[in-house]
Amino acid sequence: MPKKRFNKKRPFFQHYVIELFNVDRDLLIKDTSVSNYIKKFIEKLKEKVVYSTSYNFTPYGTTLIFVLRSSHLIVHTWPASNYLHIDFLTCFNPVQPTILSEYIKSLFKIKDFKIKLISY
Amino acid sequence: MPKKRFNKKRPFFQHYVIELFNVDRDLLIKDTSVSNYIKKFIEKLKEKVVYSTSYNFTPYGTTLIFVLRSSHLIVHTWPASNYLHIDFLTCFNPVQPTILSEYIKSLFKIKDFKIKLISY
Repeated sequence: MPKKRFNKKRPFFQHYVIELFNVDRDLLIKDTSVSNYIKKFIEKLKEKVVYSTSYNFTPYGTTLIFVLRSSHLIVHTWPASNYLHIDFLTCFNPVQPTILSEYIKSLFKIKDFKIKLISY
Repeated sequence: MPKKRFNKKRPFFQHYVIELFNVDRDLLIKDTSVSNYIKKFIEKLKEKVVYSTSYNFTPYGTTLIFVLRSSHLIVHTWPASNYLHIDFLTCFNPVQPTILSEYIKSLFKIKDFKIKLISY
């Protein structure tokens, strides 16, 4: 079986995309409306935030940035589409999709979401 | 043919992961060593930066964060692995992988890289 060309040159990490659909629009308008949920999510992931900031778009929609000790978690919201996107890369704390799913359900109280572990 | 369940609920965007291998370690040590390359890359992409910051890890390695008008571009470096990772999400300026490839080649003067358009 041929070896994967890039396998041994890449450091270990996991990269997830998490999508939340049909989210209450009010939650997605700006950073302050959604950040508490995301902070609790990061706590559950046992990730350490080393730097965080946010940027609110005009007229609405927000980007939340968390640099983690292990890498990053970036949130974008599209209020007009009731949609929230999380880009999460970690090189220390691997987590199973089923566990992520439990965290999302318990925090956001929604059923309509998708978790994708990106294959490299 | 069955419809994709989530297709119509998601706003349009493109999400790329770009990996650079065998990069000169000196380039990856801290934000100032790599940021000019990334800024030129963003210029080529015709993306507008609305906010940028960076975080240098101890003893080395850096994270560069660019919030774009269209979404985000995040860079992580792993100097010990000679590895640079770009996470690029855009909802305004779609770009073909072949074009990205040309930009990477001309800016970084390297052959060992991988571009992945994430499928949703």
